[in-house]
Order: sequence, then C-alpha cells, then structure tokens
Amino acid sequence: MIYNYSDRVKNLKGNAIREIFALLKDPELISFAGGFPTLQTLPNKEIKEITDCLMNSEEALHILQYGSTEGYTPLRNTVASFVKRYGIENVTEDNVLIVSGGQQTIDLTNKCFVNKGDTVLCEAPTYLAFLHILKTYEGNAVGVKSEEDGISISDLEEKIVKCQPKLLYLVPTFSNPTGKTLSEKKRKAIAELTAKYNVMVLEDDPYSELRFSGERVKSLKSFDKAGNVIFTASFSKTIAPGLRCGYCIADKEVIRKLTIGKQATDVHTSSLSQAIINEYLKKGLFEPHVESIKKVYKEKKDAMAEAIKKYMPCDKIKFTDPEGGLFIWGEFSDNIDTDEIFKDVCLKTKVAYVAGSTFFPGENVKNTFRLNYSNATLQQIDEGIKKLGDYFKNLLGAK
Amino acid sequence: MIYNYSDRVKNLKGNAIREIFALLKDPELISFAGGFPTLQTLPNKEIKEITDCLMNSEEALHILQYGSTEGYTPLRNTVASFVKRYGIENVTEDNVLIVSGGQQTIDLTNKCFVNKGDTVLCEAPTYLAFLHILKTYEGNAVGVKSEEDGISISDLEEKIVKCQPKLLYLVPTFSNPTGKTLSEKKRKAIAELTAKYNVMVLEDDPYSELRFSGERVKSLKSFDKAGNVIFTASFSKTIAPGLRCGYCIADKEVIRKLTIGKQATDVHTSSLSQAIINEYLKKGLFEPHVESIKKVYKEKKDAMAEAIKKYMPCDKIKFTDPEGGLFIWGEFSDNIDTDEIFKDVCLKTKVAYVAGSTFFPGENVKNTFRLNYSNATLQQIDEGIKKLGDYFKNLLGAK
Repeated sequence: MIYNYSDRVKNLKGNAIREIFALLKDPELISFAGGFPTLQTLPNKEIKEITDCLMNSEEALHILQYGSTEGYTPLRNTVASFVKRYGIENVTEDNVLIVSGGQQTIDLTNKCFVNKGDTVLCEAPTYLAFLHILKTYEGNAVGVKSEEDGISISDLEEKIVKCQPKLLYLVPTFSNPTGKTLSEKKRKAIAELTAKYNVMVLEDDPYSELRFSGERVKSLKSFDKAGNVIFTASFSKTIAPGLRCGYCIADKEVIRKLTIGKQATDVHTSSLSQAIINEYLKKGLFEPHVESIKKVYKEKKDAMAEAIKKYMPCDKIKFTDPEGGLFIWGEFSDNIDTDEIFKDVCLKTKVAYVAGSTFFPGENVKNTFRLNYSNATLQQIDEGIKKLGDYFKNLLGAK
Repeated sequence: MIYNYSDRVKNLKGNAIREIFALLKDPELISFAGGFPTLQTLPNKEIKEITDCLMNSEEALHILQYGSTEGYTPLRNTVASFVKRYGIENVTEDNVLIVSGGQQTIDLTNKCFVNKGDTVLCEAPTYLAFLHILKTYEGNAVGVKSEEDGISISDLEEKIVKCQPKLLYLVPTFSNPTGKTLSEKKRKAIAELTAKYNVMVLEDDPYSELRFSGERVKSLKSFDKAGNVIFTASFSKTIAPGLRCGYCIADKEVIRKLTIGKQATDVHTSSLSQAIINEYLKKGLFEPHVESIKKVYKEKKDAMAEAIKKYMPCDKIKFTDPEGGLFIWGEFSDNIDTDEIFKDVCLKTKVAYVAGSTFFPGENVKNTFRLNYSNATLQQIDEGIKKLGDYFKNLLGAK
C-alpha cells in the first residue's frame, strides 16, 4: 500500500523536542531539552482524595457520562471568576470553553480562522508547537522582531499592513522559548493595533502563574475592547499536565465557533479531569500549591543562572534571566550553528538543549538555544551547565 | 469586530443532535434522540477503587506528568492483545495509538488523508459526526447504497472507479443510525476491493461489544492484507464516555502519521483516563461489566421493538430490529418529511427522535428517523412509542 497523505501532513515531521527525547534514551544524559514540570511537585495525594469524593457523590455518574462540548458547567463557572486574577472582568460561562490542554486552543483557533495560505504573525522566536499546528492548516507564519520587553510594535504594525494577517499568536508572559515578558504598555498598544486592523490575537499563557520575582503584568486580554483577543491557559504547569485540561476565554460568538471545531475532534474534554480541576480550585488548593512550586522553580532557575555565570563563556553567549516560567535562552555572538553541533554535544557532554532554529518561523537563525531548568535536579543543573560551558569554551577557543 | 472565520467552519452549524438537546430542555420530554449509555450502568465504584490504587502507587506521578502522544505504554500493550477478540492478530504497541474517544480517530484520519475537494465514501445513511468532521477538511462525502447486510459491493466498486476516493468510512457493526451489521462476506470483499484500488478504510466500531443476540462477526480489519484499514473503537459505550478514551489500530507507518496529527491537537489523551482504562481491562472487569450492560440494553431494545409492534402503523413504517448497539431506524413508505414535522411532534407528543436527513451525505432523503433505546426507562419507552405511534397514525390517516 502506498499511503497518499494529505498535503497538510505529507512533509510534517514530529515535534523536534519529542524527536530529541526518542534519540536520547541514555539514562546518564542530563536533559535541559524538555518543558516538563518537576515530577515531585505533582499533587497525587490531593487528586486521590478529590477523586474519592467525586466518585462517592451524586455527581459521579454524570462525570462518567457524555458531557457538553463547552465543558463541565461548574468548571466553566469557576474559571469565569478565576480569570479575574489576570485582569479579565465581566466574563460569564458563555465566554469559557474548556479544552484538552492549552495546545488545543492553538489548534481550534487556527482551524476556525486560518485558510490555506493565510498569514499568521508570531514573535520570532516562538512556541514550536504553534508553528507545527499552523502547518497542519497550511498557513504561513511570519515572525515579528523580538525586543527585551517582547515584540516590536513598529515591526508589528509594518507586518500587519504588509501581510494582512488573520491572527497574531503570542506567549506574552515568560515566553517559550526566551523567557521574556511583554510589557504592559506594549500589551495595550497591541490590543489597540490589532483591533484597528481587524486581526485576531491568540494570547497563550501557560506560565504566568510561575512568577518567582518581579510584578504580575495584566493580560493582553484585559485590554481587549473589540473582542478580538482569545486568551488561553491550562492547568498543566500549575496542577498536572497528565490531566489534559485547560480553557480559553473569548467573545461568546467566537466561543460558539471554537466549540463547533472542538465537537469535531474530541467531543469534550475528560469530565473526570474537569471535575478534579474544579474541585482543586474550589477547595483553595491552587494558591498554596503554586506557591510551593514557585519556590522549587526559583531555586532551580537561580542554580542555573549561577552556574551559567560560573561556567559559561558569558562574553560570547548572552543569556536571558527570566522572572518566571521554565526557560533560559542563550544566544552566541559568534556564528555557531547549534543544530549542527547538537549531536556532538550530546555525545561528548551527555547534556541536551534544544537548538533555537526550531523556534523560528522560516528564518535561518542558527546561533541560539533553549535551556529548561524545571526537570533537572540542582546537582544535574550544576554538572550539566559545567559540561556545556566547557564544551562551548573549547569550541569558541578553537575558532 | 467582524470575525472572518475560515472557509472550513464558516457555514458549519453545531451537530444536529446537540442542537436538539439545547432545544429540548423540557423535563417532561421523552428523548429517543441521543446515543448516550444508560446512566445507571456507569461503573463509578470500580473507577474510584482503581484511582485510589493508581494514586497510591509509584506510577502516580508519571500518570500526572506529560505522557507520550502515542499513549500510555501499558495501555498500548493491553490493547494490542485485547483486539484479538476482533480477529485482529499480529499487533504490537507500534500499531496502537490511544485517542481521546473514537471520534478523534475520524478527525485524525481525515486530517492525514483528505485534501480539500477529495471524495470520501460512506454508507448512506452514516454517522453524522463523520459528515461534520469531513466538512472541516473541506472533503466531499459520497454515499454508497445501504442494503440489509450493509453497503452494496457493486455500488461501492462503481463509486470507487467513478470518484477515486481517498477513504471509505464505515460503521460495520450495529451501524449508527440504522443498527445494521455488515456481513462477513462483504467485509472480505471490501478489504480486497479497497486494497486493489488503493483506498484507505476507516472501520469505526463503537458498538460491536453490545451484541445481545446473533453471532459475533470478525472485524473488517481482520481481512486487511494490504495495510489500508484503520480500525477504531472506544471505551465510551463499554466503560464510560466521560473518560474520553479510545484507540486505533493501523499499519505502523500510518500510526506514526496519525500521531503527528494528534501531537498538533491535544498532545496526548488524559493519562489518568488511560491508566484507569488499562487497570479496568487488566483486572478482568470488562467482560462481566459488558455482560451486565447487554442485559439492560436487550431489555430496552425488546421493549421498544414490542411497543413498535403494538402502537406503530407498521404497514406504513418499516423498522430495523438490531442484534445490538443503541439504535432502531424507521422508514416511512409514504413521503413524510421527518424534519418538517419534528417540532410539531415534540410539541404535541413530548417525544423526540432524530430526523434521518441529518445522516445522509447530500442526498435529499426525508422519510426516515432514528430512535435510541439506551437512555430511556422501560416505562418511558412504552409511553413514548405509544405517543409517537398515535401521532404517526393520525398523520398518515389524515393524508
């Protein structure tokens, strides 16, 4: 049998990071490649207790039955209040769609707004799964310049005028991969600019709860007066990714269209997952749990930042120092191809990063890399950065 | 804001049945419209016990962490053995993809094989969500004639030659909406015919476990020598739909492509749901549970068939009498438009069916309707069919 795949997937390879994982089954390897939460922080005891209560309650059978595509009503109501913490006001359950992880919102938004050949703008670099998903809709990703405080507003306007994009995709807080945060001033400017030009915005916020220093910034959605911003977040980084549960907030009409898109894929998100998350939030477990995770992440980020200062050739590589999230971003001043050296680095140092090129839409940026600190121990962080530092010093010295 | 939706969803309305549910919030209404399992059969106690064990085990943290897109390895292995009951042999975990309900396989198969304008063949009538999903890929559904024992093989060959379809979609056992089962002879013929013409087949099997009379028929996949058949089933009708967990079986290469498609939507299926299903199967709970459900369904089907004989104008309406599944299909010999009378029926009888037109690809078939018996009590079945029968007799008498 010769399989005639559709154009949209014909040339699609697996997500680069998942490919790396397959490659790297060596147990000795220290991986800074993933973006997983710290395993030990996952709240199995609380989830056991919650499930016990749920399965003994009158709700049990309804949780096991088919649910509505929009989501479990108690969770939709809980989320409608919950998002006030992001400055998102005047939201009812009609503005909430429960999704099977934040990634599903990226899929549904592209499904509902992007035709083949349409342009979608994003920060360059950006979350690689967004680029992957956009390919399945045969859209065209165009990168907007990234500055210290997020995308360049002048470059954004220029590209809106030039490309007439359907959509702007952003991870405004603790961006994946750079860890940068978009300033409040720019958020306001983006809300105004995109409304003016009739461009939809997808604000992807998996990380803002993981802020361990600095001040909280209001969401871009909180500045949305035109109804063109879709806000999405998940409980993957704050409760447990294995439950696959997130949500999006948008204008009612948009929610109805996204719901039709979701109906055509998984009918609805696991009701058990939804009910667990709802109870977790209602019992007040979220805040103290997030506080405890943040301590762990701050410690790990500090350890990595310190190790970088100690072992890395910091005159030749610039690193971000994020106030939250999961990632540090490195950029060589020299013309180093981080893709090309990747296998050699893994082989010689037994340390893995993700080459930056995978996060850029089309452009040929080769001298960057992403480091994750949430999924390694403090000892591994010190040891891994030392090994990487030695390798890079040697590499740069030899040039 | 004017929302410029993509062509694929612009004209898409919600699933007809879900729209009906919204319409019919009257608590007095007897609904034969859905396709839900009987609420009281859902195994909440067993799921509570299983979750207890899982969350106390060493696996707990891994179940709450990100998993692989292909699925939870223990469940993939369990499923690889489990499908022997359908005559599917020589399967390893590499042939298994865990999905978030069988509907996701329909989505992924269309995503991976169907370009805009491509033809997909299906039985006429067929599962309405398939028609809905195909629209989101801008494919073109063409119906193949339905006979007593499933689709017509001569019509199938004619349409394969004429339309050069990418895919054939079938619910071979206890079809939704008709309740018909494709004969073994025809399954073999279809496997050979589609292999000859290089057409992929999606065999959707949500119902075959719910056989309460007659003999089990081997799956179409069991006759697949070319590797062109994708088999999908879920645990929604046998364990609990709220967990959103199913699987598909296909050639390794096809599984890899479907996996890339799934990665771009929900990353992976809820690991908690997957682990619960795996334990349920491994503990031997599946067989006795399905036996107990079948008794309930047989009783309900018998009650509905009996009420039909008693109250319906059976000289003017032909009904199927299925050996399993969830549905009975009615067909008027007169030219009755079941869509047109639907609201009047609901208003006057407080009984709901689904008009048959929604299950036909394009064709203008108006004189059919679907009745579900799993979600009403025996008393409601007798009462509802009596009311419908009276209405129909009156309608036909008045003509």
